[in-house]
Amino acid sequence: MDRPLLFNAFEMASAMHNAHGLWKHPDSERHRRYKELYYWVEMAKRLEAGLFDAVFFADVLGVYDTYRQSPAPSIRDGMQFPLNDASLVIPVMASVTNHLSFVLTASTTYEHPFHIARRFSTLDHLTDGRMAWNIVTSYLPNAAKNFGLERMIAHDQRYEIADEFLEVTYKLWEGSWEEDAFVEDRGAGMLIDPAKIHPIHHCGAFFSVEGPHLCEPSPQRTPVLYQAGSSERGRAFAAKHAECVFVGAPSPERLQAYIEDIRRQAEQYGRDPEQLKFFTFLTVIVGKTSEEAEAKFEQLRRLWSADAAKAQFSGASGYDLAEYETKPSDEPFLFRTTDHGHYKAASLTKDAAKRLTIGEALQKAGTLTRESVIIGNPTQVADAIEERARRSGVNGFNLTHLVTPKDLDDFIEYVVPILQRRGLYKTAYTPGTMREKLFGGGARLPSHHPAAAFRSIGVRTKSS
Amino acid sequence: MDRPLLFNAFEMASAMHNAHGLWKHPDSERHRRYKELYYWVEMAKRLEAGLFDAVFFADVLGVYDTYRQSPAPSIRDGMQFPLNDASLVIPVMASVTNHLSFVLTASTTYEHPFHIARRFSTLDHLTDGRMAWNIVTSYLPNAAKNFGLERMIAHDQRYEIADEFLEVTYKLWEGSWEEDAFVEDRGAGMLIDPAKIHPIHHCGAFFSVEGPHLCEPSPQRTPVLYQAGSSERGRAFAAKHAECVFVGAPSPERLQAYIEDIRRQAEQYGRDPEQLKFFTFLTVIVGKTSEEAEAKFEQLRRLWSADAAKAQFSGASGYDLAEYETKPSDEPFLFRTTDHGHYKAASLTKDAAKRLTIGEALQKAGTLTRESVIIGNPTQVADAIEERARRSGVNGFNLTHLVTPKDLDDFIEYVVPILQRRGLYKTAYTPGTMREKLFGGGARLPSHHPAAAFRSIGVRTKSS
Repeated sequence: MDRPLLFNAFEMASAMHNAHGLWKHPDSERHRRYKELYYWVEMAKRLEAGLFDAVFFADVLGVYDTYRQSPAPSIRDGMQFPLNDASLVIPVMASVTNHLSFVLTASTTYEHPFHIARRFSTLDHLTDGRMAWNIVTSYLPNAAKNFGLERMIAHDQRYEIADEFLEVTYKLWEGSWEEDAFVEDRGAGMLIDPAKIHPIHHCGAFFSVEGPHLCEPSPQRTPVLYQAGSSERGRAFAAKHAECVFVGAPSPERLQAYIEDIRRQAEQYGRDPEQLKFFTFLTVIVGKTSEEAEAKFEQLRRLWSADAAKAQFSGASGYDLAEYETKPSDEPFLFRTTDHGHYKAASLTKDAAKRLTIGEALQKAGTLTRESVIIGNPTQVADAIEERARRSGVNGFNLTHLVTPKDLDDFIEYVVPILQRRGLYKTAYTPGTMREKLFGGGARLPSHHPAAAFRSIGVRTKSS
Repeated sequence: MDRPLLFNAFEMASAMHNAHGLWKHPDSERHRRYKELYYWVEMAKRLEAGLFDAVFFADVLGVYDTYRQSPAPSIRDGMQFPLNDASLVIPVMASVTNHLSFVLTASTTYEHPFHIARRFSTLDHLTDGRMAWNIVTSYLPNAAKNFGLERMIAHDQRYEIADEFLEVTYKLWEGSWEEDAFVEDRGAGMLIDPAKIHPIHHCGAFFSVEGPHLCEPSPQRTPVLYQAGSSERGRAFAAKHAECVFVGAPSPERLQAYIEDIRRQAEQYGRDPEQLKFFTFLTVIVGKTSEEAEAKFEQLRRLWSADAAKAQFSGASGYDLAEYETKPSDEPFLFRTTDHGHYKAASLTKDAAKRLTIGEALQKAGTLTRESVIIGNPTQVADAIEERARRSGVNGFNLTHLVTPKDLDDFIEYVVPILQRRGLYKTAYTPGTMREKLFGGGARLPSHHPAAAFRSIGVRTKSS
C-alpha cells in the first residue's frame, strides 16, 4: 500500500454534486454560494490547510433528463444543476495557495482541441504547473442536443474521437514549441526564434489543425492526465493515456482486478505500469463518537432525495429507472450510454452471478446506503480507509463531501491527524509541479508515455 | 460631449499587443510576465486605483502569417504571440477589485454558443456583474486552419452566423430561466422550480441547441455587448446588437460620420440611439515636459519593429504588404478579409479621393507615426484628448499602452488629474454592475434591445 495515500476533494461548480437533496441540511452553504468568488477562495485555503492533494472538478454539459424522461427531478433538487464553468475559479484558488493542485474535467466530444490546448496551457502557467485534465467523452443525451446532435455519438466512436483529440493536443503541447524558443535577444531584435516554433499540420479523421500552439510551454507542458473509464474501451484508453485513473467498483477486490488489468494493458503500450495512480470514491460520515456519526447518518438519510439520486443514476447509466419502479426486473444491469447499445461495466468479474440486477440497482439508487459510505468515530473511519486501500491497492481517493463545507472541516479535524500518525496522510507538501508531487520525477511527461512521440514534430516538419 | 469620458485599458493576454518590438524597451515587463497570475493581480489594482472603467481584452485565434506569407515576422517580435486565454485571468482581477469591469473578446465563428453562454454567465456571477463580451467574427486565415477550415468563411456569412449565435445566447441568458426560479423551499423540498426553467429548442441554419441554460441568471444576465465592426455589414450588426461600439477612423470627422450612421441604424431597429456608447483608439506618450515626451517618442521609434507592425497590418487587412514593397501602388486600399472578396472599410466617406492608396497604407504601416499617437506634456495631452472627443462625439477610449506597465502609471499620474479637473474623468466609481455604471439604468438589457424579445420564450414554450 502506498504511503501516504492521495486525497482529492471531489467537487463540481454546482449547487449540488453527489449530495442528493442535502441543500436542505442546516449546514449546507454551497447551493447558495457556489457562484461566488469568495466561496472558492475559502475552499482553496481550507483544502491547502488540510494538505489535500487536489480539488477534482467533475463536469457535465447538460441536464439529467433520463429519469421519468424529464429534467424535473434533477432540477428540483439542484442535482448538478445549475452548473458553472469550473475553469474560471481555478486561477482564483491558485492565487491563495501554493501547493493545492486542480483537476479540471473537459470533454473531447463537445470541445475543440485547439481551444482546450490553449486553456490548459494558460491554466498551467497561472497555477505554476498545478493542473490536471480529467478527460471525458460525456454521457448525457441532453449534452448531445445542446451541441447540435440529435442523439449521442456511439460509445466506442466517442473514444475514437478522444484518441485523435489527444493526439492533436500532444502535438500542440509537446511538439509545437522547442524548449529554448523564447530567446529575448535584444542585440538580434528577436524575442522568439521562429525556427523553433512549428505548425503541427494535423489532418485526421475528426480534426484538422494547423498550429502552431498559441502558448509558450507551461511548467508541465501536458497537464497531468486523469481519466475515468470503466468500460473495456475506456480501460484501454486509460491504459494508453492516463497517469491517474479514477475508477469505481462494488468491492475492493473488484477494484483490484480493474487496477491490475489497466496496469497490464499500460505495459503493453510500453508504459511503466507503476507510473499510474488509481483513485476511487470515498464518502465519510465522521463524528467524535460512533453514536454521533450514526446520528449524522440518520439525519442525512432523512434529508436525502431519492428522486435526485435516481435522476443521476438514470442519466449516468442510460436506464430510466422509473420504468422499473412498478415492475421488478431480474435482468442483469448493464450501463447503456447511447441509444444504440450498452456496455458491460462489470465485465471484468469472472463471477457473472454477482452482477447486479436492475431491480437491485433500482433499490440502491434511491437510498444513501450504509455500504456506500464510511460511518464512524475518527479511528473507525481511519481503519476503514486503511482497509479499503490495502484490499484494493488503490493509491488515493476522491472524497465526496455531503454537506459543504462542514464535512471537509470534520474530515480535516478528525480523520487527517489519525491517518497522519499512521503514515497514511502527508504532513507537508513536497515541492514542485503536480506531476513532480505525484510521481517524484520531472515536471514533464515521462519518455515512456505515448505523447513523447510527438516531441520531434518540428524536426520531422523541417526534414519533410 | 459626454462628461466624464470613459477609459478602458486596451489589453491582450499576450507577450505584446500593439507595441511592435517594444519588448526591447528597458521598462517593458509584460513580455516576460503576461503568463503570471500576479502580473494580472497588479494590473487590476493599478487600473482600479486609476479609476479606469474597464480592461478590454482583445483576442485572436491564430498567428499573423499574411506578411511575406510567413508567421516569422510576428513570432520574432512576439506580436500577439504567444497568446493565452484571457478569460482565466478575469476572476483573479475581480478578486482584488470592486468596480473595474472586464471586456472579453470571444469569436462567434470558432466558439459554440452553449459554451460561450455558460462562460459569460459564470464570469458575470464571479465578477458581480462586471462583464462585457466583445463579439468578433475573427479575421486571421490561420485561425480558420486551426479549426478545420481550409479557408476563412466569407465575411458577410460570418455575420449571418454571428446573428444566429447571438439569438441562441439571448435565448439562454434572457429566456431560459424565469427570475424567481431559485425558490429554496425546504417545506416543499424544492430548491429550484422546474416549471420556471425552460429549454430553448433552438433549431436554426447554423446551430441547434436544446437547453436549458446551465447557469442561474447572473447579475446582468446578458453581459454588456461590445462590437467592433467597420464594414457595412459590421455596422449593421453593431446597430442591432451592440451597446458599446469600438471603432477606428482616420479622422475625428470620419469617426463622427460612423457614429451618426450607426446611431441612425440602431433607431431603425427600434433601439434608443443614445443608449449606444462609442469608443476609439488612444495612444498617449506623455512626459513632465513636452521635451521629455518627444524624447520618449524618439526612443520608441528607434525600438519600433517595422516588420511586426507590417505583419499585423497585413494579417488584419488581408494584404501581404511585402508584395508592394518593391512596386509602389496607387490602387485604393480596401480591407480584404476573405480569399473571396474584400469590403470597403471607408465606404462612408463621400470623398472617395481621400481614401488611402496601398502605397500610402504601406508607408504608414511600418512606422510609429506622429499622427497615430498623442505626444506632449500633461496639459497638451489632455487638450488633445478633449479635442478628439469633442470633434468626433466619441464617448470613450481604449487606451493602448506601448510600454507596460510604465505607460499606464504615467497616464494615471500625469493625465488623469488634469482630465478630472475638467470634468472629463470620473473622480469616483458609481455603484452597480457594468451596465448600470455605463448607462445609469438597470443591470439588465433595456426593453428596446432585440434580446428582450426572447424573455418570454418559456411562456411560448408552455402554450405551444
